[in-house]
Amino acid sequence: MNSDSISRQLATFAHGCTWDSIPDAIRHEAKRSILNYFGCALGGSQDTAVCNGLRVLDPLSGPRQASVIGHAKRLDVLNASFLNGLGGNVLDFDDTHIPTVMHPTAPIVAPLLAYAEPNAVPGHALLHAFVLGIEIACRIGNAVAGGGHYRRGWHITATCGVFGSAVGVAKLMNLSAAEYVALFAAAGGQAAGLVENLGTTAKSISVGNAARNGYLAALLVREGFAGPAHPIEGPRGFVHVTSDRPDLGAITSGLGDRWELAKNTYKPYPTGVVLNPVIDACLELRERHALSAEEVRSIHVLAHPLLFERTDRPNVTSGRESVVSLQHAAAVTMLFGGAELAQFTDDAVRSPEVLALRTKVHGTPDESIAVGTAHVRVGLNDGRSFETSVAEARGSLERPMTDRQLEEKLRSLAAFAAPWCDTSRLIDAIWTLDRSPNAASVMALTSSPT
Amino acid sequence: MNSDSISRQLATFAHGCTWDSIPDAIRHEAKRSILNYFGCALGGSQDTAVCNGLRVLDPLSGPRQASVIGHAKRLDVLNASFLNGLGGNVLDFDDTHIPTVMHPTAPIVAPLLAYAEPNAVPGHALLHAFVLGIEIACRIGNAVAGGGHYRRGWHITATCGVFGSAVGVAKLMNLSAAEYVALFAAAGGQAAGLVENLGTTAKSISVGNAARNGYLAALLVREGFAGPAHPIEGPRGFVHVTSDRPDLGAITSGLGDRWELAKNTYKPYPTGVVLNPVIDACLELRERHALSAEEVRSIHVLAHPLLFERTDRPNVTSGRESVVSLQHAAAVTMLFGGAELAQFTDDAVRSPEVLALRTKVHGTPDESIAVGTAHVRVGLNDGRSFETSVAEARGSLERPMTDRQLEEKLRSLAAFAAPWCDTSRLIDAIWTLDRSPNAASVMALTSSPT
Repeated sequence: MNSDSISRQLATFAHGCTWDSIPDAIRHEAKRSILNYFGCALGGSQDTAVCNGLRVLDPLSGPRQASVIGHAKRLDVLNASFLNGLGGNVLDFDDTHIPTVMHPTAPIVAPLLAYAEPNAVPGHALLHAFVLGIEIACRIGNAVAGGGHYRRGWHITATCGVFGSAVGVAKLMNLSAAEYVALFAAAGGQAAGLVENLGTTAKSISVGNAARNGYLAALLVREGFAGPAHPIEGPRGFVHVTSDRPDLGAITSGLGDRWELAKNTYKPYPTGVVLNPVIDACLELRERHALSAEEVRSIHVLAHPLLFERTDRPNVTSGRESVVSLQHAAAVTMLFGGAELAQFTDDAVRSPEVLALRTKVHGTPDESIAVGTAHVRVGLNDGRSFETSVAEARGSLERPMTDRQLEEKLRSLAAFAAPWCDTSRLIDAIWTLDRSPNAASVMALTSSPT
Repeated sequence: MNSDSISRQLATFAHGCTWDSIPDAIRHEAKRSILNYFGCALGGSQDTAVCNGLRVLDPLSGPRQASVIGHAKRLDVLNASFLNGLGGNVLDFDDTHIPTVMHPTAPIVAPLLAYAEPNAVPGHALLHAFVLGIEIACRIGNAVAGGGHYRRGWHITATCGVFGSAVGVAKLMNLSAAEYVALFAAAGGQAAGLVENLGTTAKSISVGNAARNGYLAALLVREGFAGPAHPIEGPRGFVHVTSDRPDLGAITSGLGDRWELAKNTYKPYPTGVVLNPVIDACLELRERHALSAEEVRSIHVLAHPLLFERTDRPNVTSGRESVVSLQHAAAVTMLFGGAELAQFTDDAVRSPEVLALRTKVHGTPDESIAVGTAHVRVGLNDGRSFETSVAEARGSLERPMTDRQLEEKLRSLAAFAAPWCDTSRLIDAIWTLDRSPNAASVMALTSSPT
């Protein structure tokens, strides 16, 4: 039993943690998270939130020391952190830390990459800072998630992300243990983000700020900014203010033994995660029976009522809406043999062949089927029918995306919005990041040539 | 009864509000708030939070279009907003909106002044934007203040200040009514600040961010950032997330008829406000009886127990602590005939004559005396004694600081930290701001020559 305060314990841990103490599996998971991040950030780089944000910040930028993923323009490190944090999350295709439903990587890795560009940071140091940032953000998230944090309306990716960003940058700056305590105050005082804003570009401001403001917190603390003794667990500190029943033990229990990155997952498809088993089942039937869309007479989905509550949208009109449409997801999967970003655009939604197949998708809610399981039956024009059931969808903790699948996801996302990107070199640079003398070299591969 | 949503009503009001509709008394109160602000910002300009913040942001600054009050260095408009918002509040000597206990001016006027420097803004337009920013921030504050916002731990100056900053800058940009609705989302998604951080420089980060991030919100919305339909009152919007029983009616009731600036007050002394009647009483006795400190044998204070709970600190050791010390405040007032910033420094605390008089200050708690009233009796070496009672302290809504007293406060604060400042010209420029063709000209008077 450690008699130090929670803030102090976390600070001592963050300051003392060495790269040697990070298990190989966690090091590898860090690379997987970062690989997934680069795919999402490249794929999202032409989104209006990124492009409009860049138009605002470009004329206000300080020294242009950091890249903006998918663009030729460079910005100062804080503004680049904002846009790259925002950009990695804007497609809602990024990672999910299962216990908190936080999407942790974008706000945490973006400022580390920005810091690495003007400073000499070896690859393993960046990975180490990233592992630590994820660890602290998710542990604070674990403490508040059960106490109604998200349900009340705090967007946890942003509110807890700022702690991870701050800790990661602080690790690269080699702050002292006492400075980490001040850092938690500086980060907590900038924790913001409202669930009401989800589905709009206003959401992205909070995610970008989490990235930027964590970096700012580290800069200010290094220059002498101070805070109270118990910024995290004090009576009016972060966890009590943003949770009705915070689980304080979750913050420090097993610190250094259990790692939160082990609970991180990656989305295989750009859709709402509840659709994953449906898409898996359609892909499986299409491949196993070499089906073509023309011979399909009907697609019937049997699943828990929850699936239909969230995704029964036969008549979608926009790409944004189509990612939560059961009918659209089943149709495009059967038609194209894959569910990638290109299949969820405004154009795809209006395509006559997609529209025709969408009308053939039907479903039956069945309370007896477990949430997360989908049973799909495809009827053909010649009278035959095939069916299958998927219980553990691809991308779940039980059936994680493989390294190859993550690579394919990155390639597909780059092809969607950054076709100039040499994805093979980028993928190789990420897998070998721990041996790279210069973590920033990976960023050079993500800058648009024009 | 307006059937529009609250966010929409506020947006329509903010967009449609004209300078002609602002009553003369409110226009004058705006100038008083701004005069008080400049005093506080000049007096706080050499505080470590400002100086350390400037050291961090200077090398990251974009185009140096805006002044930093009390310094020669200029920064880009967002970074200047941050430092000038922080700087006006750092001494805790700024204004107080009575219903919310918010300190509204610093985070709201700082970004307007920064906007005015590179843009052509007439003085009356800046005053108008300021009145409107205060109005919206304080009305949203009124809605959450009763529902435990501050008690739970949100630092209302920062959390609500960002709405005022955003609205003020939006008014200068002439955004549309629909854009104001998006603006409330962009501001709410950046609302942050924890009471746990008060008394430390981490607090100042939140106040600076409120100023900066409101400006950023307006820039992003002008460039197309959007939000949900009900960002303020939606189920997971700002007021429900940050208050247990929000008073939604308070946001729009009497909009355009009653003005929140009418409830703004200014501190006459740099101390905790509960000490105001004690200082007033000491000043009154000293003047009326031409007392000198050498003839004083004892100072006895009779007041409600609350005063002693908060300020019974006979042995203070730092300037920061001395502002909440009954003994120190009474002693320096009797000694110097005034309670100004110079009397609450580390040096003043250690001065032998202050120390000697401090030991002669005693008090008696008395439940029968109203909170806010102080009875002071001074005993002299020759056996005589004088006493007086002060019920409505200077600086309260009932006995507001006069224009002349606000001018004196500014002069005293400038003398403390910015002695080069031509305060007569600055004061004149503020009183005539509504007739100035260029609001930014006032900022030129606050820049340090070196």
